[in-house]
Amino acid sequence: MTTGRPHVGKLVVVGVGLIGGSFALALRAAGRVGTVVGVGRSRANLDTARELGIIDRMATLDGDWAAEAADADLVLLAAPVAQYPGLLAAMAGRLGPRAILTDAGSTKQDVIAAARAALGSALPQFVPGHPIAGTEHSGAAAAFPTLFRNRNVVLTPLPATDTAATATVAALWEACGGRVRVLEPAAHDRVFAAVSHLPHLLAFGLVEAFAGRPDADDIFRFAASGFRDFTRIAASSPEMWRDISLANRDALLEEVAAFRAQVDRLAAMIAAGDGEGLEAVFARARQARRQWEAHYGAAPEAIPADGQRES
Amino acid sequence: MTTGRPHVGKLVVVGVGLIGGSFALALRAAGRVGTVVGVGRSRANLDTARELGIIDRMATLDGDWAAEAADADLVLLAAPVAQYPGLLAAMAGRLGPRAILTDAGSTKQDVIAAARAALGSALPQFVPGHPIAGTEHSGAAAAFPTLFRNRNVVLTPLPATDTAATATVAALWEACGGRVRVLEPAAHDRVFAAVSHLPHLLAFGLVEAFAGRPDADDIFRFAASGFRDFTRIAASSPEMWRDISLANRDALLEEVAAFRAQVDRLAAMIAAGDGEGLEAVFARARQARRQWEAHYGAAPEAIPADGQRES
Repeated sequence: MTTGRPHVGKLVVVGVGLIGGSFALALRAAGRVGTVVGVGRSRANLDTARELGIIDRMATLDGDWAAEAADADLVLLAAPVAQYPGLLAAMAGRLGPRAILTDAGSTKQDVIAAARAALGSALPQFVPGHPIAGTEHSGAAAAFPTLFRNRNVVLTPLPATDTAATATVAALWEACGGRVRVLEPAAHDRVFAAVSHLPHLLAFGLVEAFAGRPDADDIFRFAASGFRDFTRIAASSPEMWRDISLANRDALLEEVAAFRAQVDRLAAMIAAGDGEGLEAVFARARQARRQWEAHYGAAPEAIPADGQRES
Repeated sequence: MTTGRPHVGKLVVVGVGLIGGSFALALRAAGRVGTVVGVGRSRANLDTARELGIIDRMATLDGDWAAEAADADLVLLAAPVAQYPGLLAAMAGRLGPRAILTDAGSTKQDVIAAARAALGSALPQFVPGHPIAGTEHSGAAAAFPTLFRNRNVVLTPLPATDTAATATVAALWEACGGRVRVLEPAAHDRVFAAVSHLPHLLAFGLVEAFAGRPDADDIFRFAASGFRDFTRIAASSPEMWRDISLANRDALLEEVAAFRAQVDRLAAMIAAGDGEGLEAVFARARQARRQWEAHYGAAPEAIPADGQRES
């Protein structure tokens, strides 16, 4: 592989779901990949991936799939983050010296800790990443080659990470249509705790609390479009969000504490009848929300989804 | 007016905005109204309403508009709730004996208290109401006759309210396409504190807190579709939501306290690494959200909006 316009002779995708499958399809569409090997738990999903032309060959996790890593140019981990420690341990000592390893996990500090623990001297070959894309569908059948077009892809390389490897991974995501951004791992986890993980937690929490109330029937009967939008993300995968909540525990708890302080502040204003203070808060919020909409929310293709992938 | 298929000879609409204007247009379309008199602060808006055929005549609030109430069959208050005490005081002793007074305010206990204070012996003529409809637009120019089609309209009559008046108001909203529901005033305020006022407060609070952070640029750059939906209502009118937050203070503070307890419970689960507990909460939330979507959220015309009207 050269870094200017890299071509991946052999790609191994671990977890051929919406993200992993779409990455393979996008590289194929860009003429940047030779052979694609799919690795996963479910043979049925891998069969689907092969029928759809996403992968050329397959290996299941109960076999010696890590042998495929030996002569791979690129390995993408796109499985649920809770599986990473096992996957990385299986790959330890098996990754070929010219292979690059990258991932698509929603949290980064925990992934990096797992990589540090497992990879040893191969750590510089690992480029941690997070494409900010997804739809409400999952599995290989949901994959499509334009998923990453105009979407942010965050890379969080370590000081030890090989810079040429980072440049190659960046060039490949750009070939998929993505916009590559670099963040510190801690900054990544803090930002996504705020803009994604906290809202999911709040939406799940609100709906679950409503469902347990004696007046739940009235509550749901009169819930309207505000409730609809506010709680859409409460229909997300419980398993995935359980894993994210625990994987990003520290940053998420900090966001919860900060948000609680804000709610307490607003409650104090309401209790005190401080209409001026409330209006000022609401007006700053409206202005910021409108600015965000104008900058980032205008064109549908510029609206990245929340990476609600499940495999 | 007869209550079976009532016809309003003279309708006075105080506040000819999205709601008041649409009510007049819907009654006209149903052949249920003779003359419509529009009352408001802004002559420009009333001129627009007359040009659009919403009203036949107009009176501004700085004149003796309450004289129009004397021979009205129906008076609809559709102005911001904060104006109600002044409007009701101006109408005291002026409402004709056969007139029915109703309203479209987002909160009911405070409106009823203001009516009790102002109306005296005319209190039985007042039928408190709240159509659960709206769009992001406001003013007479935004009005349209099908706004209330398949939308819930909540009436909260008092023990003292004339039952024939309630039946007439219900029949008129049904003629507009609405689905009339009756709730106790306290139940109304509790339900809407939960499904509408609390989500607005949380969305405003989240966005305002983000805007004040040192990492606000990163936060907004990486905010995605989950943030987009969760915070859409944070672009609502600061003035209107200030008034609602204070008008429904007690019920809203109870909802804030209950939600804080739920957030604390989730934070404790995260801190304890209780994945099973989190997954159970998230799964109950997803199930409830999906059931709500299936029951109430399927057809676009069955999705009532949040009454984001401003006058």
